[in-house]
Amino acid sequence: MGSDASLDSLKTKLLTIHHLKNASAVLSWDQETYMPSGGGPARAEQIATLQTLAHEAFISPETEKLLGTWVDIPTGQLLEKARTTLAKSSQALIKEIWRDFNHASKLPSAFVNTLERECSLAQQVWTEARKKNDFSLFLPNLRTVVTLKLEETQYLGYSDSPYDALLDEFEPGSTVEQLKPLVGTLRPRLVSLLQHVLNSSIKPKTSLLTQSFAHAAQLEFGETVLRKMGYEFDRGRLDQSAHPFTTSFHPNDVRVTTRVFEQDFQSCLFSCIHEGGHGLYEQGLLPEHYGTPLGEAVSLGIHESQSRLWENAVGRSRPFWKHFFPLAQSVFPEQFGNTAFDEFYLAINHVQPSLVRVEADELTYNLHIMVRFEIELDLIEGRTRVEDLPEVWNQKMQDYLGITPDRNTNGVLQDVHWSFGAFGYFPTYTLGNLYASMFYEQAKQEIPNLERGIAEGNLLPLKEWLNQKIHRWGRQYSPEELVRRVTGQDLSPEPFLNYLEHKFGDLYDFSIKPET
Amino acid sequence: MGSDASLDSLKTKLLTIHHLKNASAVLSWDQETYMPSGGGPARAEQIATLQTLAHEAFISPETEKLLGTWVDIPTGQLLEKARTTLAKSSQALIKEIWRDFNHASKLPSAFVNTLERECSLAQQVWTEARKKNDFSLFLPNLRTVVTLKLEETQYLGYSDSPYDALLDEFEPGSTVEQLKPLVGTLRPRLVSLLQHVLNSSIKPKTSLLTQSFAHAAQLEFGETVLRKMGYEFDRGRLDQSAHPFTTSFHPNDVRVTTRVFEQDFQSCLFSCIHEGGHGLYEQGLLPEHYGTPLGEAVSLGIHESQSRLWENAVGRSRPFWKHFFPLAQSVFPEQFGNTAFDEFYLAINHVQPSLVRVEADELTYNLHIMVRFEIELDLIEGRTRVEDLPEVWNQKMQDYLGITPDRNTNGVLQDVHWSFGAFGYFPTYTLGNLYASMFYEQAKQEIPNLERGIAEGNLLPLKEWLNQKIHRWGRQYSPEELVRRVTGQDLSPEPFLNYLEHKFGDLYDFSIKPET
Repeated sequence: MGSDASLDSLKTKLLTIHHLKNASAVLSWDQETYMPSGGGPARAEQIATLQTLAHEAFISPETEKLLGTWVDIPTGQLLEKARTTLAKSSQALIKEIWRDFNHASKLPSAFVNTLERECSLAQQVWTEARKKNDFSLFLPNLRTVVTLKLEETQYLGYSDSPYDALLDEFEPGSTVEQLKPLVGTLRPRLVSLLQHVLNSSIKPKTSLLTQSFAHAAQLEFGETVLRKMGYEFDRGRLDQSAHPFTTSFHPNDVRVTTRVFEQDFQSCLFSCIHEGGHGLYEQGLLPEHYGTPLGEAVSLGIHESQSRLWENAVGRSRPFWKHFFPLAQSVFPEQFGNTAFDEFYLAINHVQPSLVRVEADELTYNLHIMVRFEIELDLIEGRTRVEDLPEVWNQKMQDYLGITPDRNTNGVLQDVHWSFGAFGYFPTYTLGNLYASMFYEQAKQEIPNLERGIAEGNLLPLKEWLNQKIHRWGRQYSPEELVRRVTGQDLSPEPFLNYLEHKFGDLYDFSIKPET
Repeated sequence: MGSDASLDSLKTKLLTIHHLKNASAVLSWDQETYMPSGGGPARAEQIATLQTLAHEAFISPETEKLLGTWVDIPTGQLLEKARTTLAKSSQALIKEIWRDFNHASKLPSAFVNTLERECSLAQQVWTEARKKNDFSLFLPNLRTVVTLKLEETQYLGYSDSPYDALLDEFEPGSTVEQLKPLVGTLRPRLVSLLQHVLNSSIKPKTSLLTQSFAHAAQLEFGETVLRKMGYEFDRGRLDQSAHPFTTSFHPNDVRVTTRVFEQDFQSCLFSCIHEGGHGLYEQGLLPEHYGTPLGEAVSLGIHESQSRLWENAVGRSRPFWKHFFPLAQSVFPEQFGNTAFDEFYLAINHVQPSLVRVEADELTYNLHIMVRFEIELDLIEGRTRVEDLPEVWNQKMQDYLGITPDRNTNGVLQDVHWSFGAFGYFPTYTLGNLYASMFYEQAKQEIPNLERGIAEGNLLPLKEWLNQKIHRWGRQYSPEELVRRVTGQDLSPEPFLNYLEHKFGDLYDFSIKPET
């Protein structure tokens, strides 16, 4: 439990709350993987009960009293006693506990109840509206959710934009002021890069990847790659679910899922690698910090950097496939036996504007995110009305990707996030991509012959580097501090843009001159 | 939630507690089926947290106040208001809630904590001692557990034997005074019946059942039988675990498990049928009573009657195999293609004294239970010392089954029950057998052509009869009342003994004259 024994009573209290939350996570995992359909309604009640008890225990006077011996509750300033007697890591711990406490305490219980009920309702209506391709069905619920989220920003408080209050929940310290120039840099260069790709005479043979691939063989191949990445199966599992995800109940009990489409070589495999990146982060948190913020991932953006790094920088790289393509050929001899390496490598890196984010390639993916970020920012800052969303969405898709959705199901209704009020979530996907490139560049500098090792199937040095540099620290440093500690740099889009321009310039045979 | 709206606040309180307990049950199920080994220690803490919270919420002043508006808390007598305004079923509900509350409240929290910790410890030592065949290792822990259970009987109170206080937890209303004459009748007739079987010149060809049976085919066959029994897979699952069990998180989310040994045709199949019997009970409880005693099984003995009825009265019967043997032959043509029906039927009903209870046949099984019942009764009533258990055990095995364990691992150390303090549990297995025979006799009288239907694979009339007669009532009637309602008779060993004497007389070609 760390070195400061005087913190034990606070940690014990948190541990109980953490056990409740992790129990709830087990119930959610079961719901997505094995639960028979009849179990749904009772399961929702069971999860709600655990979440409510955890919330109530966390914002209880007892927690406040224990925390108040170390920190000034109204301001979050450490007390003299904390500054003089606690180790640095324990001081960070107290600050992070306060951060969570302060956030949870600002929201009145009645408001949390209303928000959770309305979001749960909106999510059900969204499912229906998406199925029926009927935005008008979803409109009243979405309006309610947006109104409630605006109310939430008032409770939480902010200096510049109300959007900051929402963003902060997913990416501590991130602001509109920080994101806007990033997007301003990324968007034109991604749009231009996409034009270069589309103008290229090189056309990948994507039909290679849509042959028939046996279900069991796909799963086995995915599991083989996961093991090579260092994902440990005595502390983790791989299961199947409708939407791939990662969850953790303890660093020694982490679960990732994938899904299998027999006509698609990529979906199962890249879900395994992507979720495996998340899973390695969770397995890499230190068990002695379990139940405290130091035993938790620092932000969604940093989490996503781990999945993106493995999925794209590694899993779609030439060195990776130097090792794994021969294996893929032996597992799928009929499909790949006569395929040349370069042909395969080009196919799994093909770029094609498409309507659906989760199926997007590495390059266009961030344009999908920008569409969402700009729309939700306008919504929360009051420049766009909810009823105008379909039109706004379609226009931005045309502007950035050059295609217009045929129907709202493939447009504004495609993502679940807004229905459960997760405004401020989407930018973390792009932040993850930017962090991933910065981390990977640094790893290449620090790990001798990294890519030569990867080409020999040796992925463990990278996993161990990530363990040491990122995973083990939990929330001891803010995302901003962590990135600076690991790379010596502040967050920048340049490594990511350079990586894309270089990679796709090579693949599609063009070159982009460095901007002056 | 039933008809008495005035009970709603009490029911709502219970529902929260029930959600916690069911969440804990999900965590236990996961632990036995899918949890990676590393998850063990954290899981124990998570489960302990949920159980403690549920216990504290249940014995809280709030529960007492809500319950106290209907019942006199010290005595359990219904108040005037309850007797005049509540429906009969709601009155039964209040009585059962009081029963649980009274039981839980009598045990001081500190005692519960000590007991749980010592039992958890003893169980770990038992695992080790069993592996090492070393009773002396387990002796100090078992002594502690016995001492604690004696202390528990003082808290709980009893009129005649302290054993009654323990028994009552598993089989409400059951007493030593009731069990002793049952055992007195059963033991000599079972011992005599066993002698007849052993003296018979008929020798079943059991090697039929120890050929090699493919893992997947065994599971599929088990699942087929479960479906035929009416176990619903949109409200249930079948998984694998080291020790088969049934658990439920709601009548619409019931889980059974089995285990597969490739060299054993019986283990997987009869575990499926046995657990399926338990599972049908859980699926047959009424969802509208979820969270209250009316939505819970009434006792372990009645629960076991359901599994035993399906496993033995049905699953080892001639009509059952009239339908399923041809199917078994088609699934396992190499193993059974040339086997005659009678040869197979005799083999799955072979009787052979053996050392290990869980592998015992239908006839000798109850002799195993008697060994345990008599020993634990002597322990709790102070006539036997813990250190003498191995010797006492071996002597009783010799007396009743004619064999002496070669080692304590196959003797006194074989069962987990005593290590976690479950004294008073074993008799419910035998009660289950007696109830099962009574119920099945009644079913044959009430369901037209029951066995002819079974021989055609039609098991649903029996399932529906059990739903109506037993499952749907939950804890509305005591086990004693329930048996009388269903059969018109009081608990008796005669139907069971008659069934065994008739069945094995036929199979082994002897006849036992009715006693005068």
